[in-house]
Amino acid sequence: MNFSLSQIPERTQKPRENGITMVMDKGVSLREAEDFCSVCGDYVDLIKLGFGSAYVTPHLKEKIAVYREAGLMPYFGGTLFEAFIIRNKFDDFRKLLDEYNMATVEVSDGSITLNPEVKCEYIATLAKDFTVLSEVGSKDAEVVIPPYKWIELMKQELSAGSWKVIAEAREGGNVGIFRGNGEIRGGLIEEILTQLPSEKIIWEAPNKQQQVWFIKLLGQNANFGNIAFNEVIALETTRIGLRGDTFFQFLDK
Amino acid sequence: MNFSLSQIPERTQKPRENGITMVMDKGVSLREAEDFCSVCGDYVDLIKLGFGSAYVTPHLKEKIAVYREAGLMPYFGGTLFEAFIIRNKFDDFRKLLDEYNMATVEVSDGSITLNPEVKCEYIATLAKDFTVLSEVGSKDAEVVIPPYKWIELMKQELSAGSWKVIAEAREGGNVGIFRGNGEIRGGLIEEILTQLPSEKIIWEAPNKQQQVWFIKLLGQNANFGNIAFNEVIALETTRIGLRGDTFFQFLDK
Amino acid sequence: MNFSLSQIPERTQKPRENGITMVMDKGVSLREAEDFCSVCGDYVDLIKLGFGSAYVTPHLKEKIAVYREAGLMPYFGGTLFEAFIIRNKFDDFRKLLDEYNMATVEVSDGSITLNPEVKCEYIATLAKDFTVLSEVGSKDAEVVIPPYKWIELMKQELSAGSWKVIAEAREGGNVGIFRGNGEIRGGLIEEILTQLPSEKIIWEAPNKQQQVWFIKLLGQNANFGNIAFNEVIALETTRIGLRGDTFFQFLDK
Repeated sequence: MNFSLSQIPERTQKPRENGITMVMDKGVSLREAEDFCSVCGDYVDLIKLGFGSAYVTPHLKEKIAVYREAGLMPYFGGTLFEAFIIRNKFDDFRKLLDEYNMATVEVSDGSITLNPEVKCEYIATLAKDFTVLSEVGSKDAEVVIPPYKWIELMKQELSAGSWKVIAEAREGGNVGIFRGNGEIRGGLIEEILTQLPSEKIIWEAPNKQQQVWFIKLLGQNANFGNIAFNEVIALETTRIGLRGDTFFQFLDK
Repeated sequence: MNFSLSQIPERTQKPRENGITMVMDKGVSLREAEDFCSVCGDYVDLIKLGFGSAYVTPHLKEKIAVYREAGLMPYFGGTLFEAFIIRNKFDDFRKLLDEYNMATVEVSDGSITLNPEVKCEYIATLAKDFTVLSEVGSKDAEVVIPPYKWIELMKQELSAGSWKVIAEAREGGNVGIFRGNGEIRGGLIEEILTQLPSEKIIWEAPNKQQQVWFIKLLGQNANFGNIAFNEVIALETTRIGLRGDTFFQFLDK
Repeated sequence: MNFSLSQIPERTQKPRENGITMVMDKGVSLREAEDFCSVCGDYVDLIKLGFGSAYVTPHLKEKIAVYREAGLMPYFGGTLFEAFIIRNKFDDFRKLLDEYNMATVEVSDGSITLNPEVKCEYIATLAKDFTVLSEVGSKDAEVVIPPYKWIELMKQELSAGSWKVIAEAREGGNVGIFRGNGEIRGGLIEEILTQLPSEKIIWEAPNKQQQVWFIKLLGQNANFGNIAFNEVIALETTRIGLRGDTFFQFLDK
């Protein structure tokens, strides 16, 4: 920190089990990746190469190297995993992970339909060699999963070997754990948290009000996903009570 | 592409007649323009120096050179053309095009009122020396042009010498071919397409749902305009079915 | 300007008393700060290190130096002042200003409750050594301040030594002088302007329609705050009638 202030809640340090920030890279340049790491390197744990952007983005290996040297864990967005699975090319996907020297991998079924047992097999297989993130929840706004099902799926996937499960919300923050207008499905989330430790879940929460809600519920070290590139510092200040929305949360009463 | 995947729809290559992506530069720096070209150079055809930004942006000639060297076609936004016309300074505008060594020019009447015949004369005159883009549609949300009129104007302007016509939507995606809330005027667009080949039209479609709608209608090689700087890679993945919204569109049934 | 156009309204030059543009830095890198200054240096007067970002952003002194060399006035966002005050550490805050060689300071009570007399004492004390900006208005959407109170507070703070008062709107443009949906509280603003000269007020107005409204009311040299990094050039064109929304405002009738 640049200077001293009392009553600042303690943030976890890398490698973290909670207080994780996952950011989506939608296709930035090498230099932008360097700039990002120069500011956000200590605050960001996971950097997702969003959807299928890895397929079309130039200088991909160099960019992955930039992230890795800065201490971030880069990984391909789940949509890319699904694109290989729907084409029946799981082996090619594994080769791709090796070719890009990936240590982290996401398993998801946001677009495709995967039998939960099959999904868990992919998780178990990949967990032998990789840190696995698995995502629960559909990208389709029409698909509403009841709370007991969220809980069951999350438990199964963690048992199968996922390091963390990601609660789907898309980049817009408007499906899965949120309603179409971005409103939080608070009852769902609280029910999930009665059955699962919060450090095992990464909440996709791209919008400020969503982040504030979770910090009020879970404290400064909530796990967040799908944070925009230019919102990491703002989130960090929200986490520690240096932004209006959480200003009083960590002060002595 | 960085790796191999089957069932990826073929994208056109430069110089393209369809599958065009036009991006708006709202006043980025030289280095940002370089970064952009390093990632998006192959995917972007047209780069518009938006509204009157060319008047106030430093290092303009250098930036135009960066774009041109990367194979993009830079041009002044139509509002600048209109600013010269309303001041009765068409000759000065032509000199400006020469001074900046522009090969492409936009003729529009989004703010000013131009008699269609007069607009077509400008198009015809400029088409002798430049690649002309002409824009149809008002920037004023109050002005609703009926379908037959869109068709008539587009046909006239293409006959007069426009390489492509641009369907107005503003940066917000909320006028012209869209309603105030961003909703697509689908009937209008389908009626236009009964009379005009889609490769002659560039659809301003800054929002993802708008882009998805056109890709579902016209395929991966729809022509898009007013794409934001940091959305080009995301659009490219949407075009080829590597994003949730179009994931199944190009897969074998 | 890059070329000559008639009927362009005159913009004030630095150091300005009106026509001020204040931009919020939410935690950009050194290189992004350099890029920004290379484009926007002449157009931006004040650069706010937003909320508590100064606490967590690396390379802070170097970044401040970049801004200062480009002729911008950097300062800590008011939330940081409030964070020190609520901890009863005003002396530490003054030391911080010295350590970072700040010439400008913001005094605000957007999150904390400050007795107006106490706030004015802070203003008066700091005004001996610094250019003081003070902000009026709550960050809490529930707190609606009546017009006479806005006027009274603004007058008191200017009398106490504030160079300008800032009318609160948050980054979202949805509290203070705006309603929750971003709509302008026009009656409030017009009533304020019957009692205070407009050059003493900086209007936080992050959204385009808000900026247009003020330019239509106050002309090209309205003072604006909380402008996003990548909207400065767009604002500059709106100020001088080179964007659709103000295209006709400055033309001879």
